[in-house]
Amino acid sequence: MTPDAIDLTLIETLFSRLAEPDSDQVGITRDAYGPGEQRAHELFLETARELGLEIERDAAGNHFAICPGGDRALPAWVIGSHLDSVPQGGNYDGAAGVIAGLAAVAALRSRGITPVRDIIVAAFRAEESTWFPASYLGSRSALGRLDSEELALLRADSGRTLADHMRDCGGDPEAVAAGDNWLGRRTLHGMLELHIEQGPTLETEATALGIVTGIAGSFRYRQARCFGEWGHSGAVAKPYRHDALMAFSEVAMALEARWEALEQAGRRATVTVGQIATPPEQHAFSKIPGEVGFCLDVRSEEPATLKELEEALFEITDRVAKKRGVRFDLGPRSASTPAPMDPTLTARCQAIASELKIAHRRLPSGAGHDAATFANAGIPTQMLFVRNQHGSHNPFEAMRIEDFVEGVRVLAALIQE
Amino acid sequence: MTPDAIDLTLIETLFSRLAEPDSDQVGITRDAYGPGEQRAHELFLETARELGLEIERDAAGNHFAICPGGDRALPAWVIGSHLDSVPQGGNYDGAAGVIAGLAAVAALRSRGITPVRDIIVAAFRAEESTWFPASYLGSRSALGRLDSEELALLRADSGRTLADHMRDCGGDPEAVAAGDNWLGRRTLHGMLELHIEQGPTLETEATALGIVTGIAGSFRYRQARCFGEWGHSGAVAKPYRHDALMAFSEVAMALEARWEALEQAGRRATVTVGQIATPPEQHAFSKIPGEVGFCLDVRSEEPATLKELEEALFEITDRVAKKRGVRFDLGPRSASTPAPMDPTLTARCQAIASELKIAHRRLPSGAGHDAATFANAGIPTQMLFVRNQHGSHNPFEAMRIEDFVEGVRVLAALIQE
Repeated sequence: MTPDAIDLTLIETLFSRLAEPDSDQVGITRDAYGPGEQRAHELFLETARELGLEIERDAAGNHFAICPGGDRALPAWVIGSHLDSVPQGGNYDGAAGVIAGLAAVAALRSRGITPVRDIIVAAFRAEESTWFPASYLGSRSALGRLDSEELALLRADSGRTLADHMRDCGGDPEAVAAGDNWLGRRTLHGMLELHIEQGPTLETEATALGIVTGIAGSFRYRQARCFGEWGHSGAVAKPYRHDALMAFSEVAMALEARWEALEQAGRRATVTVGQIATPPEQHAFSKIPGEVGFCLDVRSEEPATLKELEEALFEITDRVAKKRGVRFDLGPRSASTPAPMDPTLTARCQAIASELKIAHRRLPSGAGHDAATFANAGIPTQMLFVRNQHGSHNPFEAMRIEDFVEGVRVLAALIQE
Repeated sequence: MTPDAIDLTLIETLFSRLAEPDSDQVGITRDAYGPGEQRAHELFLETARELGLEIERDAAGNHFAICPGGDRALPAWVIGSHLDSVPQGGNYDGAAGVIAGLAAVAALRSRGITPVRDIIVAAFRAEESTWFPASYLGSRSALGRLDSEELALLRADSGRTLADHMRDCGGDPEAVAAGDNWLGRRTLHGMLELHIEQGPTLETEATALGIVTGIAGSFRYRQARCFGEWGHSGAVAKPYRHDALMAFSEVAMALEARWEALEQAGRRATVTVGQIATPPEQHAFSKIPGEVGFCLDVRSEEPATLKELEEALFEITDRVAKKRGVRFDLGPRSASTPAPMDPTLTARCQAIASELKIAHRRLPSGAGHDAATFANAGIPTQMLFVRNQHGSHNPFEAMRIEDFVEGVRVLAALIQE
């Protein structure tokens, strides 16, 4: 499909109307199961009606716009993403995947192409975990993979439950709890999600499109601590110190070195300590820190790499604890399983991008996405990344429309096969 | 002087009466230029009168108890320390040095010895910097080394000035500002200060007494920061990261390695980062830290060692900044000059301790003390440390009275020469 088959006006109008309610605010705030997200869903429904698509809403309040295929009994394609954003985020994280679905379907219809199978453009709710303390609430509900206890989760800013918020947005939490899910009961051919890249790889390498190979899994320690011994900063000689912060620093460097060795061997991961603090009620300029709190987030799309890094963490903390006379308490652990993309779809996307002469490369997704819900449910899944200039989850999130169009061309080619 | 020349009852009574007002509180709180310190000064005066000593009070409210020497025109010895404590501190930090002076003079008088020269037992005010934001206020006033602007310093908990508090305690701040100082106008032979060790060296090495070789100087950065680049913890690949905390950790480890190399060469220092924090309003579990704030306190009794470590700091931060694409802003610098002890006095104390068969060793003082004011004023100065079981500046501060007596024996031997 040539670039001129893609309706640029539709795309630009949709992005601009999506941003409109926040145009005099800092960044974009589409609150999950709240007025911000709701306005975006209304725009989705209005557009779907204008494009003449069938419309469905499930019990969780996710919306679907269906372009009927030649054989409606065949398993359907799903193309979509989420419409919520983080507070003061950008216009593209999530929404670009929904608009890409609409634009791909619009391209088929404008050329009079009836796809072989139904194409379901999905607009999911509540993907971001900033509002409710859980990820992928919408897509998991859509596939019947929400734990009914999660309906009692509280939204941080409102103090009200997911069930309450769902009801406000026209959903039916009791039906969700009873297992009512529209999409999960359909047989699916595959799931496609376009998303802005949330890192600088494509931009730095002057590549418009990323063909995702897998969504990283992770292990996480959100409340780790190192305990040493408080002491006078000047009065305790070197051999008698049990400095919790020096111990932490040694662990950080040793873990980074292991990570570097893996990268040298072509194995990708990320290792991040996002937060650290000596306890404010006890620390002082002139005290050796007897305690330091920190978190750790390790991600990789390869289960073996995660395992190796976690074993390294245990080995390093044990060694440093013995050497320095300190103690590590890693605290509660959480983890997620890597979600591999479908190798056939990945190869097909690469082939299409090559045919269309679009600059592309394979890369993993370090961040989680609704696509992970589908991959983990055993549905062949593929993500496309569009290069992005200023990261995501911030007001400066950016994307060139011409790059976005390249992504839509690949999607449109795939779903018309 | 044999141990039985020392009046154990006097010593035990004084320590117990000093602690009495706080006996139902957590730890000991003798607030500088406040009721806590004032009560201790009254006990000092009462004891001095009972011992038949002459009493002086200077304009800053420091008290002096004088044991007249055979030739009153000769330069006098000063033996003393401070009577304030940190909030919820222990009974020994400071007060032990004052009681040691009284006990040494009492030992001379009980044996009918008239010393060659006057012995001035000094009880200084406000040594701790927790109350007013400055150290050694009392001893500096006593030697005419207080900057008159410091009289406007506010006590953190009361919000009132040093001048106000001084007046409450019978001092005369206007006279202090006008240069009125009793002790500074006397010619002094030397200054002796006994203090509990504030670290574990003596206790660990089963040594009762420390002969101090010098009081450490320092350089300090209280508000240093490293700036990197905020990013998604999973989405930014290793080559594109500018992680401020990993950069800090590399600096900490490299600086520690330089310190270790100096120690291996027999050169003593301490390197402490007492406080660290990623900014709470910006950091998140899933963000690469783009900023980290920390402080740095480096101490040594050797000016060359301080210089070498500060040059190492600049070299390391420059190197790590270039390597990782981050920026260090060390912020405001403060520093203090090392205060060497008098080598003749140090050698004499070692000889006396050996003669008296008291287990002792030389060691530096990493913490600051009133003695530094005297050493920096060019007065021959010597400190003795008494081993201590639980550090200082905490309610568990400890000291064995038999160790204290060993210190008093050395002092008494020295001042009767």
